[in-house]
Parts: sequence; structure tokens; C-alpha cells
Amino acid sequence: MIAVPKGFDFTVAAAGFKYAQRNDLTVLRSDTPCVWAAMLTRNLFQAAPVLVVKEMLAADRPVRAVVVNAGQANACTGEQGLEDCRNTLSMTARTLHLAPEELLPASTGVIGDRIKMDLWEQALAKLDAGLGEASALDAARAIMTTDKYPKMAWRSLELSGKEIRILGMAKGAGMICPNMATMLGFIICDAGVDQNWWRQAVAVAVEHSFNRITVDGDTSTNDCVFALANSRAGMVEEKKELTLLAKALAEVCAELAGLIVQDAEGGTKIIHVRVSGAKSVRQAELAARAVGHSPLVKTAMYGQDPNWGRIVAALGRSGADFDPNQVSVALAGQTIFHLGAPVAMDWDNLLAAALCRQEVHMDISLGGGQGKYTLLASDFTEEYIRINAKYRT
Amino acid sequence: MIAVPKGFDFTVAAAGFKYAQRNDLTVLRSDTPCVWAAMLTRNLFQAAPVLVVKEMLAADRPVRAVVVNAGQANACTGEQGLEDCRNTLSMTARTLHLAPEELLPASTGVIGDRIKMDLWEQALAKLDAGLGEASALDAARAIMTTDKYPKMAWRSLELSGKEIRILGMAKGAGMICPNMATMLGFIICDAGVDQNWWRQAVAVAVEHSFNRITVDGDTSTNDCVFALANSRAGMVEEKKELTLLAKALAEVCAELAGLIVQDAEGGTKIIHVRVSGAKSVRQAELAARAVGHSPLVKTAMYGQDPNWGRIVAALGRSGADFDPNQVSVALAGQTIFHLGAPVAMDWDNLLAAALCRQEVHMDISLGGGQGKYTLLASDFTEEYIRINAKYRT
Repeated sequence: MIAVPKGFDFTVAAAGFKYAQRNDLTVLRSDTPCVWAAMLTRNLFQAAPVLVVKEMLAADRPVRAVVVNAGQANACTGEQGLEDCRNTLSMTARTLHLAPEELLPASTGVIGDRIKMDLWEQALAKLDAGLGEASALDAARAIMTTDKYPKMAWRSLELSGKEIRILGMAKGAGMICPNMATMLGFIICDAGVDQNWWRQAVAVAVEHSFNRITVDGDTSTNDCVFALANSRAGMVEEKKELTLLAKALAEVCAELAGLIVQDAEGGTKIIHVRVSGAKSVRQAELAARAVGHSPLVKTAMYGQDPNWGRIVAALGRSGADFDPNQVSVALAGQTIFHLGAPVAMDWDNLLAAALCRQEVHMDISLGGGQGKYTLLASDFTEEYIRINAKYRT
Repeated sequence: MIAVPKGFDFTVAAAGFKYAQRNDLTVLRSDTPCVWAAMLTRNLFQAAPVLVVKEMLAADRPVRAVVVNAGQANACTGEQGLEDCRNTLSMTARTLHLAPEELLPASTGVIGDRIKMDLWEQALAKLDAGLGEASALDAARAIMTTDKYPKMAWRSLELSGKEIRILGMAKGAGMICPNMATMLGFIICDAGVDQNWWRQAVAVAVEHSFNRITVDGDTSTNDCVFALANSRAGMVEEKKELTLLAKALAEVCAELAGLIVQDAEGGTKIIHVRVSGAKSVRQAELAARAVGHSPLVKTAMYGQDPNWGRIVAALGRSGADFDPNQVSVALAGQTIFHLGAPVAMDWDNLLAAALCRQEVHMDISLGGGQGKYTLLASDFTEEYIRINAKYRT
């Protein structure tokens, strides 16, 4: 059973923004004001809805709902894009009987495309008619662009006799999707929590999940994760309980992040690049990203090739500071490279079965410190090239 | 006519290291001692021959020849690899009637493979028999691994009545080749020049050529460029003449670098990513590399898609510091993005002819400074994936 947090409902409508005969306008709504957090793309080019959310963060008022359109990114659309975004919030807020500033906007689609305002306006009647009628799954499907499947994760936990639920949904089939869409993530929760604590917990959870996945190393202009907590299940304030809640939140984010990598464009693998023994977390991250982004490592994994040479070559150029003679690499649990030298075994045969699997574990020790970092990466396939070279023709 | 510098000759032999029925052992030799420079890979994992050349740089004695084997990289081979490299130098020096320390070694092939010492020893008789019999083209062919064609460039210039010749050759079909080989470059020149001046000129030429190309962003463990000048055509010492010589050297390097990108694994395009208006050269480089390495930009160019959204998204995440509202992008000479906003035109049709061409020019202005950088990049194709996923199976 999907654990839908108390006091939240969902509404979807088919506006016809880009996709025929499917829902593409989505509202996640709480019946009470929410404590909220928003993690936004670090791309210098930020979409209009991202800029509006930044203003909302500065104003720091409680929110009640999230509204998402799939089809146009409303990125690189200038002043007009900001005005469009604000107009969609006014229109939609009226339909939802909310104030515009209680509504968080998110858009996904092709960069440079403006929102089709006339279609949005026409869809309001449908939104109104279906208010609260949709399921969480309907919402998770309506935010998709080229995703192959809806992505949801949830936890329910009992804290001092209260049942607390967290539900997350996400879209994305790459850090940038075929149509330059985005990674969007929405988390709703019915716990009552302090706003500052919630924002900190969300920042930590996102840093360890959505920020540690890569399909192609490209970051979208629209990426965002919103997390709303409406307190309908009661307050959570004890330190021990907050720790449990933060853990559940982190698990939901990690599960969604994994689902995005699994749905990577043309991807066949989920590569867990785990780096340890680095001089700092940042150094471990540099090493993990060099490996996880390397086209040669990604094609080797697709080819089910235990090619340690490509892994160590990527480490060596990563910018991380380490002694090559202290480096060890294990693939699928087998140490194939030990203290700077290959382990002479018939790995082609010994690892053949393990490398056929979808999940591949790559453990890299730099041998010189406490810094650790884990990155989830997809592989690179002919299908990735096909999708990204041909989709606009 | 290939301008072969005076006093240099070439020898090749088929040792059978990896490739059947072709030459794979190459000597470039001068009949007099040379002033020399060596630019080596910055990868922390450095192949045995690279480590030996570092020792030779420290010892700083004149050299007479370069010996190259294609087939085994002799990288990540530990102490044994260093001993193997030194033994090949002793054996080969004896055959060439030189001292081992007059011989610069370079290897290319699969990382982790040791040099087949028995085959090398057997090939010495062939080397001896063919001493000086090969052409420069024979040498350029014998250093290839999976290159589709030999890569050479040359200049001849008259300085104070003396004819000075520079000849370069290179191998490489990616920063790392399908077999984890390398980019190797060899430059020979018959000018007499000061060693320090030569090293500085080579460093500048390499920085602006071989260090500004990318196929997949991966840097090999064996990359190196050696440049030898034997003074057989007379001394070059006047400032004006040195400037002309440095220019010719830079042109030879740039031409070879372009040939490597043109031969990129599976590549169909040569993308000239020119960034200007950055706050510094380093900032311009960050921006250029983000665009030139972006799988989404590379697949768009393969798909002949004027997708400015992917270019600006890559710029925005590059780490370069700029104002998005000052950014302009021109593709094939047409400004498709101006001061932070797209230029509304039917670029799909207007740019169709230009994007069919092999050479694509991408001019990016960040609008905020004097920093400039040009990177040559290849595109990403299904064939790249095929080569790199399947070659070991």
C-alpha cells in the first residue's frame, strides 16, 4: 500500500502541452499550510519557475501546494517566462482557492519553449472538476516526460504512537532528459516539524541521493526537489524521533534517485561507484565523478568488460590527490587491482556472470584518508546516442 | 614533398607485439645529439616509459633517438615494467650503436600488458638490417594502433638563408584509444636551438594543440610528445627567427592535433568550441570543456541539431563565473542565442546545410572579460559506443 501522508490530495489534467491523450498538469495539495524546503538546480541558467521559487524562499511563507507542467521547460524565456509563470500561479491558485504565493511551480520540457498559456487556461476547468480525485500514482505519471515508468517511494513510521508517512515522486531519465527536461522530485510528509530542521534534513537527504547520481554529467536548468510537511499527523520534536524521520526521508530520496538511474536514457546498468580512503569527501567525490562520468568506463560496463585499466586511468586524471601505489579496485566484490597493480586472474571469465547483472558494484580505495563518496551512474549505450542525436529530427 | 629534417632517419620492424603482418617497432634517429623536450601525461598513473623519460629529463643529457612500440602500453606494470623498459633501451641502443641514455622510449597498447620481451629481442635483427631504410611515412604508420590513417605534418622555413625543417607525427584516435592506447606525438627538427628555449616553445605549442582536443575527456597513462632538434641545418638564435620557428612548431602541433580529432573513434564531426569574453583563460577553458565534453552537445552535433539549449545548459553548469544575460552563442557563424535569450529563427532549416559539414564552428561569448580558449572536440556516435563496449569481446 502506498503510504499517502494525511491531508494531501492530487489532481491531474490533460492540457495537451506536448503529449497527446495523457495528463500533463499536476497539483499536489495539502489541506493545511506546510513547512517546506526547495533544492534548486545549480546551473547558472535557471528556468523561470526556479527563479520564482527562489523569491518564495526569500519571502519564506508557508505553502499549500505544488503545480507541475510537463511539456515546456519555461527556461531561457526571459521576462516573458517569469510573467507566464506568475500568471499560471494566479490562475491555478484561483481554481484551488489558494493564494498564488501558496503554490510552488515546477516545469519540465524543451529549453526555450514558453508555456502554452491558452492550453493552461483551458485546462483549469478540468483541474477544477477533478480536484482531489487523482491518486498519487496518477500524479507520478502526469509529471513524466520521456520516463519509461513512474517513480515513487514511501515510508511509514511510528513515532510516539503517531503514524508518520512520507511519500516521494520523481521524474527524470537523465540529468537532462532527451527533451532537455529535468529531474524533478516532490516529497510530501504529514509530520509537524520545525522549518529549519526540515530544510536541513532535506538538504542532507538530497545531497546524498539526487546529487549523487549521473547519467551524462549534464545538469538541467529546471532541476528541483520540493519537500512539504503539513503536520497533519502531529508534531515530531524529540531528537531520537527526528533522527528516524530524517532517515526515512533520506531513504525515500535515495530510492527515487536509484529509480532515475535505472531509467537512464538507453541505460542497461546501475553502477555503484564507491570511493573510500580519500583525503576528504571532496577528493572522494572528484574520483567517483571521474569514474562515473568516464565514457570509457561507461561503455566498458555496457560491454560487460572488467576493464580495470579504464577505471584507474579515470582515477588518475580525476584531480584527486592520492598515491597510485595505494589504490585498490574491486569489481562485483572481487579485488582486480591491488595497491597499484593488477591482480592476475582470468577476470573475463570469473566476473562474466556478475557483469551480466543490472547492478554493478565498483569499490575503489585510494588508501589515504577517511573521505568517502558513492555515486550512482548509468552506462553508455548505442540507444543513448540514438535518443539524444535523433529525437528532434 | 614531406620535409624531413636533415640528419634524421627512420627504422621500422614487425615484432608481432599485437598486430599481425605490420610494423610495430619504430626508431626515429638523429646522426648528431639533439636538444629535446618531452611533454608527459598528467595522469597520476604513469606508464613505465613515461617514468623513465622523467628520469631522463632530470639527468638532462642530449638524446639521439626515439624508440616506440605499438601493442603493449607497459602501464601499471610496476617495477617489472620499469625493468622491461630499461632492458628494451639497452638492447635497442646496442643495435643502434648508441648509449641507452640517448634513447627516448614510448609505448602504446592495452594498460596492464607487459612488453613481450622475447619478441622485442627477436626483432632487433630486423631493426639492424633495415637501419635508416624506412620513410617518415613508414614510421608514422608503424606507431599506429587503431588509428584509421597515419598522421603527419611538416613545415619548412628559410631563416637567414638556412632551410629549417620541422616534421611531426602522431598517433591517437581518442584521448584514450579503444585499446587504452595513447596519444603519442613526435616532432623532429634540424634547427640548432637553445635547450631551454626549445622546451618553452614546445610547451607552448603543445598547450595550444594537443592539450586542447577532446574525444571523450579521458587522459591516457601513456600520453607523450617528444620534440628533438639536432642543429644539422645550423643555429637559429635571432629573436625574430625564433618567433618564426616557434610559429612553425605550433602549426605542426595544431595540424597533428586536428588530425587526431578527425580520427576520433566513431567520430563524424570536428567541433571548434571557441569561448571568448571570459574573466580569465582558465574560466574560458572551464566553459569550453563543459561544452566539448557534454554528451548531449556531442550527440546533438552528431544529429545535426542546432540545439542551443544543450550548449547553454552545459555552460551554466561548467563552473565558469559569468552573467547568463551576457551570454551569446553562434553556430556556424549564425548567432542563435543573444545576450541570454534565443534568437527566434527557423534554425533547423537555416543551419541544416552548415550542420551537415564535418567542421562545425561554435562561438561562445560569455561577455565579461578577455579570457579566450578554443577546444577541438569530436561528436559522440553509436560507433563510438560500439568500439568501446565491444572491442575486448
